[in-house]
Amino acid sequence: MNYVHEMQRLQDACRKNGPLCIGLDTDPTYIPQNILNSFSHPSLAVLAYNKALIDETKAYAGCYKVQIAYYEAMGLEGLKTYVETLAYLKKLNIPFISDIKRGDIADTARAYACAHFSGDFEADIITVNPYMGFDTLEPFLDWCKPANENTKPLNTTKLPKGFFVLLRTSNPGMVDIEKQALAKGGIVLDHVGEKLLAIEKEMKALYTEKIQELKIDFCSPVGAVVGCTEESDARQLRDKYPNIFFLIPGYGAQGGAARIAATLLDKAGGAVNSSRGILMAWKKDTELSEKIQTNSLTMEDIVLSAKKAAQQSKEELLEAKASL
Amino acid sequence: MNYVHEMQRLQDACRKNGPLCIGLDTDPTYIPQNILNSFSHPSLAVLAYNKALIDETKAYAGCYKVQIAYYEAMGLEGLKTYVETLAYLKKLNIPFISDIKRGDIADTARAYACAHFSGDFEADIITVNPYMGFDTLEPFLDWCKPANENTKPLNTTKLPKGFFVLLRTSNPGMVDIEKQALAKGGIVLDHVGEKLLAIEKEMKALYTEKIQELKIDFCSPVGAVVGCTEESDARQLRDKYPNIFFLIPGYGAQGGAARIAATLLDKAGGAVNSSRGILMAWKKDTELSEKIQTNSLTMEDIVLSAKKAAQQSKEELLEAKASL
Repeated sequence: MNYVHEMQRLQDACRKNGPLCIGLDTDPTYIPQNILNSFSHPSLAVLAYNKALIDETKAYAGCYKVQIAYYEAMGLEGLKTYVETLAYLKKLNIPFISDIKRGDIADTARAYACAHFSGDFEADIITVNPYMGFDTLEPFLDWCKPANENTKPLNTTKLPKGFFVLLRTSNPGMVDIEKQALAKGGIVLDHVGEKLLAIEKEMKALYTEKIQELKIDFCSPVGAVVGCTEESDARQLRDKYPNIFFLIPGYGAQGGAARIAATLLDKAGGAVNSSRGILMAWKKDTELSEKIQTNSLTMEDIVLSAKKAAQQSKEELLEAKASL
Repeated sequence: MNYVHEMQRLQDACRKNGPLCIGLDTDPTYIPQNILNSFSHPSLAVLAYNKALIDETKAYAGCYKVQIAYYEAMGLEGLKTYVETLAYLKKLNIPFISDIKRGDIADTARAYACAHFSGDFEADIITVNPYMGFDTLEPFLDWCKPANENTKPLNTTKLPKGFFVLLRTSNPGMVDIEKQALAKGGIVLDHVGEKLLAIEKEMKALYTEKIQELKIDFCSPVGAVVGCTEESDARQLRDKYPNIFFLIPGYGAQGGAARIAATLLDKAGGAVNSSRGILMAWKKDTELSEKIQTNSLTMEDIVLSAKKAAQQSKEELLEAKASL
């Protein structure tokens, strides 16, 4: 299939391979101590776990999400592991999202876009925080435009990039700002959503020719983060943003339900993230309880637990979607 | 002087050495091409410029602010320069702010706090984005508490840390979310400000004994970013948050005025950031115009321009403050 931008490539991968997004939020403490001890630096254990886990779970994942915070927490060595994890995913041609949640203004936002859409940390899709205002999104948007006479794309030799804007997150604190009622009506996240629709319209105009040529439905290169923690707003959000692809946190370890996720997977669809539920599946794997007690787990053991959890999650999500 | 936490140390430095905060947003393009060419990697030119600039300007700076985006944009090599720039400031015992604007939830926020309050990237003061909700602030707050029976501080051998929360930024887009009118009254930033006051109260209770012992005014370890781009809200914000130290962007290259900054420097005070106005002072230095034309600028030349600009900015800010 020919793609017009990276978000459409991600959408296609999640349609073909299922909506599960495996989150590589790989904190070293998620790895059994005896395995950690066999590496000279925790970041090397994380890299080995990431690679083995990708190998074993890729049949069940539409994409992966790499949360940079856990790598930053290990300092420069950790960021080397981050770079090598991204390189491994690129080598396998697997779409992934770099969960960086950067947000800043003007030249600084341009620097962040450059940092994460090119060079060592290059990703095809990232996450962005819109709090400081909509001008903070523009430098990222410049990387998502097609090369034609109306644009000066920053990205001429590769597929245009994509990014997700935080819309409705999955944490309890999302009521504090995102859900605040506005004097003009609606809540803060509706206001952010209006901007996403305006961007969609702007992007659609730039992509018209290519969409018609390829005879595909339009999907905005700018997606939204929409958590699956509350039934009440899932249908409403899905209907409001039919052409926007969602990154869906809150499933699995965070307590979200497959049924809510399934609602959000309608229309343009989405990628449902599970991180700890898969990374730490070994802790709940009853077949491993003896090995856990005797500190004799191997990398193979924990990766197989992750594989089972990934398979189960994929099936659960597809079943929930089918029974909608 | 004895300090109870890093924000108070920063406040004291800005009282003693003036309120100018020099922003090391050192993009390689801010360095003349012929100087850049003499280094094997742009990040090494940035490091050399940062060090020389710190040496020459430290007499005029209350503190420095290091904007991580510009270092991330140079990849792993850039982050090495970031680490070495922080190390240089630490060696000289100069307070600095790491402008990282991270913001995330639960374990991820804990990972970011760990990443930037310890290890390779350790800073004493950072900036934080509150958009996802107030639960995102807690993991950072755990590093700002004193060691006593009421707390389990994460920071037992060093002074407790501090951080700035984005309140009213200096970009045009700040009207999009921060200034949105709420149905309950006030605007979004008032709502964030209420949380900052609640944190101040909570922190004051934890610090009571130490404050009384040292006979000092209380300053919250959690400051606020308040831009100096509009006269209309500066006095109001300063009065509303008398014990909160401000990080003040929007002065100099961003077009903010010294008079508005001076208003914000009242009460608990603040640090007024200038980045490009100092880093790129050489471009406007009429004494250097011939050398610019002949590509013969030296590191000494551009650092002396920065020094003059820093001295001028410090004087302008102190005069504006005196004439209030």
